[in-house]
Amino acid sequence: MKNIVILGATGSIGINTLDITQRFPERYKIIGLTAKSNDAKLEDLIKRVQPKVVALQDENAAQALSKRLPKSGPEVLAGQAGIIEVARLSEAALVISAIVGSAGLLPTLSAIRAKKTVAVANKEPLVMAGEIIQREAKENGVTILPIDSEHSAIFQALNGERHQDIQKIILTASGGPLLGLSAEEKTNISPERALAHPNWKMGPKISIDSATLMNKGLEVIEAKWLFDMPPEKIEVIIHPQSIIHSMVEFVDRSVVAQLGLPDMRTPISYALGWPRRQETPAPRLKLEEIGSLTFEAPDPTRFPALRLAREALKAGGSAPAALNAANEIAVEAFLRKRCGFLDISRIVEQTLEASRNRSLDSLEDVLEADAQARETARNCI
Amino acid sequence: MKNIVILGATGSIGINTLDITQRFPERYKIIGLTAKSNDAKLEDLIKRVQPKVVALQDENAAQALSKRLPKSGPEVLAGQAGIIEVARLSEAALVISAIVGSAGLLPTLSAIRAKKTVAVANKEPLVMAGEIIQREAKENGVTILPIDSEHSAIFQALNGERHQDIQKIILTASGGPLLGLSAEEKTNISPERALAHPNWKMGPKISIDSATLMNKGLEVIEAKWLFDMPPEKIEVIIHPQSIIHSMVEFVDRSVVAQLGLPDMRTPISYALGWPRRQETPAPRLKLEEIGSLTFEAPDPTRFPALRLAREALKAGGSAPAALNAANEIAVEAFLRKRCGFLDISRIVEQTLEASRNRSLDSLEDVLEADAQARETARNCI
Repeated sequence: MKNIVILGATGSIGINTLDITQRFPERYKIIGLTAKSNDAKLEDLIKRVQPKVVALQDENAAQALSKRLPKSGPEVLAGQAGIIEVARLSEAALVISAIVGSAGLLPTLSAIRAKKTVAVANKEPLVMAGEIIQREAKENGVTILPIDSEHSAIFQALNGERHQDIQKIILTASGGPLLGLSAEEKTNISPERALAHPNWKMGPKISIDSATLMNKGLEVIEAKWLFDMPPEKIEVIIHPQSIIHSMVEFVDRSVVAQLGLPDMRTPISYALGWPRRQETPAPRLKLEEIGSLTFEAPDPTRFPALRLAREALKAGGSAPAALNAANEIAVEAFLRKRCGFLDISRIVEQTLEASRNRSLDSLEDVLEADAQARETARNCI
Repeated sequence: MKNIVILGATGSIGINTLDITQRFPERYKIIGLTAKSNDAKLEDLIKRVQPKVVALQDENAAQALSKRLPKSGPEVLAGQAGIIEVARLSEAALVISAIVGSAGLLPTLSAIRAKKTVAVANKEPLVMAGEIIQREAKENGVTILPIDSEHSAIFQALNGERHQDIQKIILTASGGPLLGLSAEEKTNISPERALAHPNWKMGPKISIDSATLMNKGLEVIEAKWLFDMPPEKIEVIIHPQSIIHSMVEFVDRSVVAQLGLPDMRTPISYALGWPRRQETPAPRLKLEEIGSLTFEAPDPTRFPALRLAREALKAGGSAPAALNAANEIAVEAFLRKRCGFLDISRIVEQTLEASRNRSLDSLEDVLEADAQARETARNCI
């Protein structure tokens, strides 16, 4: 029996995780759940899996939930301290880290420090503090498993392979809902249009990141840390059908790829069961029905976000954290119609230019770089 | 240092093998070579790699070669006995089995009985006598490595995986040079046209087998034995670009594929270096330049050979050996313009119908089934 905690349980990753774990009640037990503020949805999940402890970031929501739950229900914790307590639950073996954005950093690091295997579905912690996270994972003997479909694909392709035989990691990118549009056509794009991802149903932040390709930029940074790869060995290719989830090229020119219909239950299942596979309810890939898989090089002028992410990765230090923070602020502003679509990359670029790059030796350094970049980005809007 | 013997060294597999081994003189030494009758080409190879022993099936060719070689040259053996002696060379660690057609069976089995790791580039031995070969491989603790690009792809995709997690093996087929043609259009196809494979440069027998799709049928049978898979778990999909060399679908709906430009040096290198990869001179796959990969289900009416192979596999016993023998006779007749292209499958079907199926308990049974089917097939022409 594997005891599992889900951080950020009310999002799509949390729901899909339950869809897998509930099929194997003899293998998995969900013992802890956390959410930001959606106490109603968290209550639904509590009824489904009866965890021991839950936490809500929002203290009022925690109080409201606590009042509604029966005496036999789980302990309800509140605030960041409560979330971190759930991330460190002594009985937990695996922590699913699915908190959206930079808020996932501290809880993820707490789970690592408590020597839990961590499955990361949120890329921000590794983008902001990849070096610190990998250092602490190594010190604590912790395995970090990817849940992002691209990184899960690479992780699967690397199964049984030697690190020194890797020539390139090739991340596929759908190109998002605005792939074919010129800069001019994107100027007045509405949030609704930019949110309409052709292949994946995801939360609003990551959907907008897919439209700008910043999502792929963040994945390049994530891949560097997850797979210990220099940036020049990480490539991005546009593949609009999102069937090949990513690839690894080896020194013998052999390329190993992982494919499937876009369904997060497969990578989630892989992380849950690793190193074993298990049946999932995901539908079968039938390439004869799909007919054609297409590929093109990403156009750097159409997608400045990818260039910005590579520049931040090359600069190192606090630059990726600043990139990530500025992007979060800019995406939020776009979703609230306070800036245009093209302004997202402009705000990120201006923030990076205005930010002093420094080395990140501690979590405090990361959080400071994050806060300063947010401030700068807000001023750019 | 790995000592290597190449059976059938003068074909494209032999030449490509030397292209790899000569790049790593500190890793590989070619100590034995065999050929059917091309003593001039074998002499070239001897000059390149200076083996200890060579053998020619054709006794006159062996005598001619022996006279031309200097005293310091290799020992020259003749006839099937000579080839088998090379296949069993005591210093050899790895035997590359690349003799075209059924003539490869006895030498391959001899190498297995001598406890050599065998890399099979010829599918006929496994098609004819898969059960016997696998039984003897198991008894002798021998690993059989695939060199065929499709089976190498599956072997690579299975790296680090558990057999019980396999849902399907999916062999890709280019569809050959006549993919789009109707039966009517194929009636008067010339050997030259049928030999013009769009992606791979191969010998005449396998090129015609690609045009009829019998090659894929033989590969289905080969896959059953190599990967211990029931026939219903082995699928074929048409993929004209030959970039995805084959795929494995797992129980979690994850599909792992191996890709590359069509270049036999990659699978040969994999078999030579297994379980380690090594650099090859093969060119890089650039999917953004290829642009599109397409897939379709094979049309059973256009490609009766695939159905015949599946029927023979289902029937078991001597049926696959009869299928293979009849196909060899029919392809030879087609290449000599003694029958039409569509007659190839007709001759195979008639031979299968006329052959009594029996169980194959010994190599003698296999050879008898093979000889009888050849006789029947000749009568059908």
